[in-house]
This record gives sequence, structure tokens and C-alpha cells, in this order.
Amino acid sequence: MDKPVFDYAARWQRAAALMEQQDVDALLLMKPANLAYFTGDGRPCALALLTRTLHCVVAVPACDLASIRRTSVATELRSFQSEVEMFHGFRDVLKELDLTQATIAIEKNFFDAALYEVFVAHILPKAHVVSATPIVSQLRMLKDVAEMASIKAAAKVADSGMDTVSRALRPGIREIEIAGAEFAVRKASAEGWASVTYVASGWRAAMAHGPASRKTIAPGEVVQVHLAPIVDGYTADLCRTFLVEPIATDAAKALRAYVMAQERGIAAAVPGADLMGIDGAMAASLEHEGYGDKFLRPVFHGIGIEHEEAPIPGGHAVVHGEQKVDHVMAGMVLGVGNCGIYREDYGVRVEDTIWVSEEGPVPLTCYPKLIH
Amino acid sequence: MDKPVFDYAARWQRAAALMEQQDVDALLLMKPANLAYFTGDGRPCALALLTRTLHCVVAVPACDLASIRRTSVATELRSFQSEVEMFHGFRDVLKELDLTQATIAIEKNFFDAALYEVFVAHILPKAHVVSATPIVSQLRMLKDVAEMASIKAAAKVADSGMDTVSRALRPGIREIEIAGAEFAVRKASAEGWASVTYVASGWRAAMAHGPASRKTIAPGEVVQVHLAPIVDGYTADLCRTFLVEPIATDAAKALRAYVMAQERGIAAAVPGADLMGIDGAMAASLEHEGYGDKFLRPVFHGIGIEHEEAPIPGGHAVVHGEQKVDHVMAGMVLGVGNCGIYREDYGVRVEDTIWVSEEGPVPLTCYPKLIH
Repeated sequence: MDKPVFDYAARWQRAAALMEQQDVDALLLMKPANLAYFTGDGRPCALALLTRTLHCVVAVPACDLASIRRTSVATELRSFQSEVEMFHGFRDVLKELDLTQATIAIEKNFFDAALYEVFVAHILPKAHVVSATPIVSQLRMLKDVAEMASIKAAAKVADSGMDTVSRALRPGIREIEIAGAEFAVRKASAEGWASVTYVASGWRAAMAHGPASRKTIAPGEVVQVHLAPIVDGYTADLCRTFLVEPIATDAAKALRAYVMAQERGIAAAVPGADLMGIDGAMAASLEHEGYGDKFLRPVFHGIGIEHEEAPIPGGHAVVHGEQKVDHVMAGMVLGVGNCGIYREDYGVRVEDTIWVSEEGPVPLTCYPKLIH
Repeated sequence: MDKPVFDYAARWQRAAALMEQQDVDALLLMKPANLAYFTGDGRPCALALLTRTLHCVVAVPACDLASIRRTSVATELRSFQSEVEMFHGFRDVLKELDLTQATIAIEKNFFDAALYEVFVAHILPKAHVVSATPIVSQLRMLKDVAEMASIKAAAKVADSGMDTVSRALRPGIREIEIAGAEFAVRKASAEGWASVTYVASGWRAAMAHGPASRKTIAPGEVVQVHLAPIVDGYTADLCRTFLVEPIATDAAKALRAYVMAQERGIAAAVPGADLMGIDGAMAASLEHEGYGDKFLRPVFHGIGIEHEEAPIPGGHAVVHGEQKVDHVMAGMVLGVGNCGIYREDYGVRVEDTIWVSEEGPVPLTCYPKLIH
């Protein structure tokens, strides 16, 4: 838990270059994922200011001061007795740094609307406030070698968790007990989950989002399982669909069609290609197999410190407060298959984490896709 | 998983009365906790409109339509192919219900600032938009008998989880393995967690927020453990501090002082008393024991569908987009002890979930507080 291996100096330099380009004087950060990316410590209830001149102030509750000294690369640490004081304290920070009337970029897709209004009115009344997302996402979207090591480790843990799931799965067991695979994932060194564990069986498998419930798994059902362990601060996304004996023929057919489409989507993730080509390739394949109107978008998203991060495809980017990204780029890490074929009474989904290398897509999660 | 036992009709009536009082025509809801409270189904990626005339439209992705019919008490269900379409579809809903220029209350402490701006500009351009929080929190803050049954069940599961923790805890084990108590909690019927599991040992126990890490627990360390299981959609909050042998004398002394202060805080949670009297009672006790400057606020918060909900004390209410609440009221459920005594190299915290009955505070989590 000592200061980690990531090259924060390089991140700050790249951030400063983008601030220069976009006429931003400082990034004001509160989102744990961004605090982790820029300072090495992503604890909740902390605030950071990273200036274009590479001054980095982090403020935490007083009790956190000793521990954050071990983990943060901030140039200055401050402490407060409550979160209210912490917010107010940033007025002083801005004054001392002569940034009261500066252009401050803040995380508009993280601050809630109520807090944003209060914050802008009371802490930044004279500043020019813009969104930090164009800068932060552009940096975080492309992973370096050290980040890839963490994501690969998370992918391996996800694979091992899915193996535990497959051994536990049988008719008569409840979904929440299957989710107990989390324990194996913990023992395999996961610090936690970037998304709740989905175990959705039978009619629940037709839902877009199916956190494990107390439903008992019955013979012949379809079971979707979704794992997103965090290792070294990074996550991977893995979803598999299990078919419980006696296997439903139509579900098996849908699953094969979906795997084929997902693999075509993955194959389209080539540097320089249209980003929406991943969606196009999957859609064309599903259309050809007769499932054109039965799937849900978006079919992919970026992965890294967060379970869903840039790039976010098409119109979904706007909903997530993100920028539209046109092309696949080497260094992206994507979850491909984030949709599924859905019928009235079941659904199938298969999702993998892939890395876009200079040479093309490299799958990081590798658990078998047709498990029956 | 069929339509549950809560009295939604009564909730709608109470909401309509508050809408009348506050000149609001409809609540537009997206926060899962609020969707669960008003419609019986709190899945993500859903939108609801509850009008003052008790029309309740819920929109979900097309694949979710069959499953939400089983669980939602909405008067009308609609479906869409993507979340982008879903947002746009609400323009039509508002037009059909003649609410385009109405006063619409939305969850300003849930919508992020970026989405809020887009949503208000494109979906509600002619509406008068206000915050839904004063209405929603006023209702959710006071729990009825059916809700209490769920919260009590969650509290029992939390107690059983803490017992598993205490049996697993020993020097040489990693924090994340202690967090494996989650598996026992799953088997005891938890649907998940309302907050990540905290296991913070040694220097990490001095942090205000300590999710389990890969740190190995050493002899003589202080270990804070925090569990928040969800049962039937409701949660309870339980935190205990374990002292590993050989017991550090100063930590044992701090823990005793903290337990005493927390129990005085609980005792102050009497209907009609000042809400901030809970804070005052704890602060006075800690001051008296010589720890006046070593604790962190807030010392309590509401609990229910969410891990932290109304009432939120003092200035923290503003940070959370909540209303200030003046008095303790029968029907509140509070987590008391949400602060801790923090030193340079360790911290102690003890938190319990209590119910404010007409007769006074009733502890719901009951695991022993001094465990050494």
C-alpha cells in the first residue's frame, strides 16, 4: 500500500498540455477514480486541485492525513474536520493560488446537480467553470503498460471467479449463493467489485441488469453471471451465460449466435477503425442470425479504474457526460458484448474485456464462452 | 420476487398530498431507491413519472418489460430499445399527460450535473423544474411496520456477518479475506451490500473510509469492520472495532470511551428531541473523556433503502442535497456512531442501527461492542 508504480509525473504533464490546449487553469477533482488516477489515492471524501503549473493540493478529513501521506503523490496535503469544512477550505486554496477568477474544470458527470449548484455558487462564484471530462477521459481512455498489468490481473481473477461459479451452479441453489463466488475472488486478491455481481436465472435473465436475488435456480434455466473484480485499483468485466440441464434448444441457439456476433464485434476493434464499427459488426451478425430486433445497446464501453468509462459509444456518451470518440485507438480497453439477446422469458449475454493493441484486439478475459 | 408487501397506495397518497402542498404536478424519478419506494422495483436504467393525480408511468429497456410486470405497481409500463430512447420517450409522456409546462420535481441530488443540464434542456425545456428531495425524503424518512420488518431482518444478517468476522479474525490473515464474511452474509439471505465492506486494520483504521485491502493483519492491531447487508431491499449499518492480541491499552481505552459516547448518542434519539442533540450528547461525552478534538462528523445519518438517507444532520444535509430536519421523529431509523475516535496510527468506531419508536430508541443491531 505504499506509493504505487504508476507514472503520475507523466499523467500530470499530459493533463497540463490538455489544460493549455483548452484554456483551463486547474482541474478540481472529487471522483475517487480521478483522484486515484492523478494522485495515487482514490479514497472517498477527498478533494484535489491539480493546476496547469503542476501544483496538486489534496484535502482529506484530519484522521486521514497520516494514511494519505503513505499513498498520495500530491505536492500539498491539507486536512479538515468535516466534509463541509473541506469544501469551504477550497475557497482558501483558490485564493492562495490566485485562481479565484480562473477557468476551473470540474467533474460535471460526477457532482450531483444539487451539490454542483451549491459548490459553484459558494466555492467558485467568480471562476469560469467548465467540464473536466474532456481532459480526464482523453487521458484515462488510453492505458499504459503499468495499467495493463493491473487490468490483466483483474481479468485473471474474473476468469477464476467464473470457474468457481461454474462449479457451484446447479438446480436448487439460490442466485445469492452463486454470488458467493465473490469469496473465491476475494481470496484470489480482489479488493472488491466495480459493479455488483449479477446472477440472473430464468425469467430474471431477460433483465438488462440482474443483481443476484434469492430466486432458486431451476432445471432448464438460463443463468447470466457477471463479475467485475478490482485488482490494484483496476477492473475487468466478464459475463457468461450458463445453460442448466435439460438445455433449452432456443437458448442454446441464441447463445451461439450471440457469441458469434460478439467475436465479430471484438474483431472490429482495430486501431484506426470507426469506433461504432464494433456496434455495426455485432448488429450485422445478429441481424443475419435473425436476432436483429432483440438486442439492447450499447454493445461496448471502456473499462479501467471504472467499470464503465470512456470511450462510451454514440448517443450514450451524452447521457454519461462524455465526449463522442470517433475511432478505435491503440491503448483502449473495452468491454465488448455489453448487450445480449433478450426474449420474453430469458436472455443471453457474453461480455469480455479486450485490450486494443497496435496489432489489434487482444482478449484479456478468456473463460470458455459455450459452457454446456 | 412477486409484487411485494409494502403499501404503495398509501405512499402515493402521501406523495400527492405533499405535491399539492408544494405546488408540484409530478415527480420524475430515476434513482433506484426512489423507484423501489414508489413502484416496488428499483432496477437501474428505469425512469418513472408519478403525477399528483396518481398516474404512474415507468419506462424500462424492452427486454425488462416482462420482468417488471411481475414486480412494479406502476399504472402504465413503457419500453425502449436504449437509455437514450428512454429519456427522449419522456417528452411524449409529458405531452400526452399535458405536463409539458407543469412543475416537475426531479432528483437533483441524484442526476449528475451534466445529465441534469441535458435533461432539463431537452426533455423539460418548458417545465418548471424543482427538487424532488423535500417530498421524497419527508416520506422515506419515516418507516412503517413493513419496512421495519425488512430493516430488522437486515440488522440480524449484519449481526450474523459480524459473528463470522470475529471467528475469522486473527493475525496473519489479509483484510480482504475477513471481508469474505460477505459469503456467510449471502448465505444468510443478503441480496448484496448498500456500502462496500470495510476492513481497516492498524494504520488503515485511522482512515474515515477503509474498504478491505490486501494488507495483512498484525498482532496488536486495531481492526474496524463495517457491514451493510441488504435484505428485502432495506439495509442496516453495523460497525465494530476488534482489538487483536496483545491488546493496545490506549486503543482499548478509546474504544470504551467511544462506546459510552455512542450509547449516550443513542439515548438522545427520543421523539420530539432536537435532532442535533444526538451529536451534542456524543460530543459532550467524548469531550469529557478527553477525545473532544479527535472525532469526525457527522455522528449519525438515516438508514433505509439507502445506506445514508434522510435525516442527514446539520450542514451535511446541504452537501447531500437534503433538507434540514429539526427534530427526532418516531419512525426514523438511524445509524448512530458514524464517526469514530481517530489517532495518528489507529482509529476506533462503533456504529449501530437504531429505530426511533414512540417510546424511544430501540437498537436493531446487537452484536457485542467490546470484543476482547
